Amino acid sequence: MDFDWTKPEKAIAKRAFSLALDRECNGLIEKVRKRASAIADLEDLWKLNDYLSKQRKEIYEKYDYRYSVLIFVFARLIIEGWLTEDELEGLADDKMSEILLMVRMAEE
Amino acid sequence: MDFDWTKPEKAIAKRAFSLALDRECNGLIEKVRKRASAIADLEDLWKLNDYLSKQRKEIYEKYDYRYSVLIFVFARLIIEGWLTEDELEGLADDKMSEILLMVRMAEE
Repeated sequence: MDFDWTKPEKAIAKRAFSLALDRECNGLIEKVRKRASAIADLEDLWKLNDYLSKQRKEIYEKYDYRYSVLIFVFARLIIEGWLTEDELEGLADDKMSEILLMVRMAEE
Repeated sequence: MDFDWTKPEKAIAKRAFSLALDRECNGLIEKVRKRASAIADLEDLWKLNDYLSKQRKEIYEKYDYRYSVLIFVFARLIIEGWLTEDELEGLADDKMSEILLMVRMAEE
């Protein structure tokens, strides 16, 4: 989908993107701390290693700030609970309706 | 080096091997907990991930319980401080002198 992003929209997008990334990052740090404090043996250490590798790959793939894919990214972030619709307020109607359509489809 | 390992020697070797592995493992768990509690951002998370991957590879390579390589393994464990000479007491003189020769060479 080839949308034009105005300057104010870019600012909104950037802020929302960072907000979601910060939330996901903080949640992950909390989980890793808990897991680390519960480590009892080498097996647990390597499980933490695998968990981190998986999360790293996922976050790297998910947080893709190209304008060509950004509405898919925002739909996913809303679906996964890292962002609310309200936090995208100010985006043009065509973008918002595409994003919300994807969110509704995922909810069905 | 092709040594024969008697049954009592195998018991000593197994015990010493486990002792060193437990020590290294406990030290690593402690380090990982400290690092995890100090994590501030994604960068720190991925550094912990890389650290664990590196340690995993190293431990996997180091703790090789084949009798054909065991005296090298024990020499390394003594050199790195995970084992003491005393903890290998009971191994035949030919094995001990080879191990201690490697330890002395590393100290020079």
